[in-house]
Amino acid sequence: MAETGKLYGIGLGPGDPELLTLKALRLLRAAPVVAYPAPDDGASFARAIVAQWLSPGQREIVIRVPMVPERFPAQAVYDGAAAEIAAVLAAGSDVAALCQGDPFFYGSFMYLFARLAGRFPVEIVPGVSSLAACAAASRMPLVGRNETLVVVPSTLPEAELERRLTGVEAAAIIKLGRHFAKVRRVLDRLGMAERAQYIERASLANERVAPLADVEAESVPYFAMLLIGGRNVAVVSGGA
Amino acid sequence: MAETGKLYGIGLGPGDPELLTLKALRLLRAAPVVAYPAPDDGASFARAIVAQWLSPGQREIVIRVPMVPERFPAQAVYDGAAAEIAAVLAAGSDVAALCQGDPFFYGSFMYLFARLAGRFPVEIVPGVSSLAACAAASRMPLVGRNETLVVVPSTLPEAELERRLTGVEAAAIIKLGRHFAKVRRVLDRLGMAERAQYIERASLANERVAPLADVEAESVPYFAMLLIGGRNVAVVSGGA
Repeated sequence: MAETGKLYGIGLGPGDPELLTLKALRLLRAAPVVAYPAPDDGASFARAIVAQWLSPGQREIVIRVPMVPERFPAQAVYDGAAAEIAAVLAAGSDVAALCQGDPFFYGSFMYLFARLAGRFPVEIVPGVSSLAACAAASRMPLVGRNETLVVVPSTLPEAELERRLTGVEAAAIIKLGRHFAKVRRVLDRLGMAERAQYIERASLANERVAPLADVEAESVPYFAMLLIGGRNVAVVSGGA
Repeated sequence: MAETGKLYGIGLGPGDPELLTLKALRLLRAAPVVAYPAPDDGASFARAIVAQWLSPGQREIVIRVPMVPERFPAQAVYDGAAAEIAAVLAAGSDVAALCQGDPFFYGSFMYLFARLAGRFPVEIVPGVSSLAACAAASRMPLVGRNETLVVVPSTLPEAELERRLTGVEAAAIIKLGRHFAKVRRVLDRLGMAERAQYIERASLANERVAPLADVEAESVPYFAMLLIGGRNVAVVSGGA
C-alpha cells in the first residue's frame, strides 16, 4: 500500500508577505496541492498573501466559507473540503493548508485539523499572529514580566466581556466589527478606554492605528482589534 | 546635522532558525550593528538562532543579563546597553536588536524600547511567539470561535494563579521552572490538569511534549509552558 501524503497547516502571518517564515515559504513552494479559505464570492486573502510564490503546476483547493461574522462556519463546507483533501492525501500527495495568522490562534485550519488529524500525518507550522502584528503596529509593548494577558472576542455578551476584562493588566479584544460600540461601553465603565489602542489591517499598506477615542463605530471591520498594554512594561523605562 | 539610525526590534521566533520571517532575515543581514541578550556567562540563544546569517563585518553588542528567574532584569544593564545603542544610532547607523519569540510578548526588547523609542526611530518586527510554537508542537488547537484565552506567568502567588485560571476556556501558563508543582496543584483543584499539555523547547531538536501527569517537577526549565486548549475547538470536529 502506498504511503499517504502529509497535511501541513501553515500559518502565513497577518498579511504582509514578508512576515511569512522561511519554513512556511519552503513548504508552500514544495507542496503539489495548496488549500485555502475564500469568501463565498471574492478573492482569498490567504492566497493573496502568497500569490507571488504559487506556481501554475500546483493544484489549488478553494474552501468557500460563508463570511458572516459570528456564524459558525458551515460544517458542510469543512466536511466537503476535508473529504477533498483526504482524497489527495490518500493518493500520496502532500497538501499545504494555508491559514492567515497562526493556525491554532483563532485560525480556520482548526476545522480541517479536527477532521483529518486522526487519519493522516499532520504538521503545524506556527505563524506570526494578528496579536503580535497589532502590538508591533501600535508600538505598544503588550505584556511583560509577571503580567497576565487576556484575549477576548468582542462577540461575547456585554456583561460577559466586562467580567472577563475586570482587573486584567493587558488585554486584546479581537473580532471587533459591529461590536465596537459595546466594547467601548465596557472599557469606559472599567476605566480602561484611555489606554486602548485600535488597530486594523496590521502589516498591510492600509494599516490603521488610532486611540480608541478617534474611532468611528461605523467604520470598524471584523478583523480589527483593541490592545491594552500592561503597565509594568512602562515601569521599566525608568533610567538610572 | 546627520540623520540618526533606526532601531529595529526583531522577533526571531521560538528557536528553529527556519521560523524566522523573511523580513527579520532581510533586516538582520542589512544591519551594520546587531544587539542581543546573553546570560552572564555563556552563549546567547538569540544569537545562536541567527548565527548562520551574521557576517564578520557586523558589529555585535552583547547585553549580558543576569539570568536569575523572576529577578527584575537589572536596570543598570539595560541602561548601559541603551546608551551604547544610542551612540550608534546617533552616529547614523541602524541597529538590529534581536529578541527570541515576539518582541512585545514577554520579550526583552521592551526594556530597550522603553529607553530609546522616545529619542530614535524604532520599528518592531513581529515574530512567531513561543505560544504559537508550543501550540503547534503540542498539536492541540489552542483557542477559537468565541473562546477567551488567558496567558499567565506561573511566577504569580498560588491564590492569584487560581483566581486568574478559574472559569477560563483556554490558557497558557508560562515561565514554569521551579513553579511547576504549584501550578499543578492549582490545575488539580480547578479540574483542568487532565487537559493540560506540557511543552519545553518548542521547535528545537530537543523539543518535548507530554501530558502534565508525565512531567517530573525537578526537570522543568524556566522556558517551558503548559497549554490548555479550548473545548469549542473540539466540538467542530463532528462530521456529517
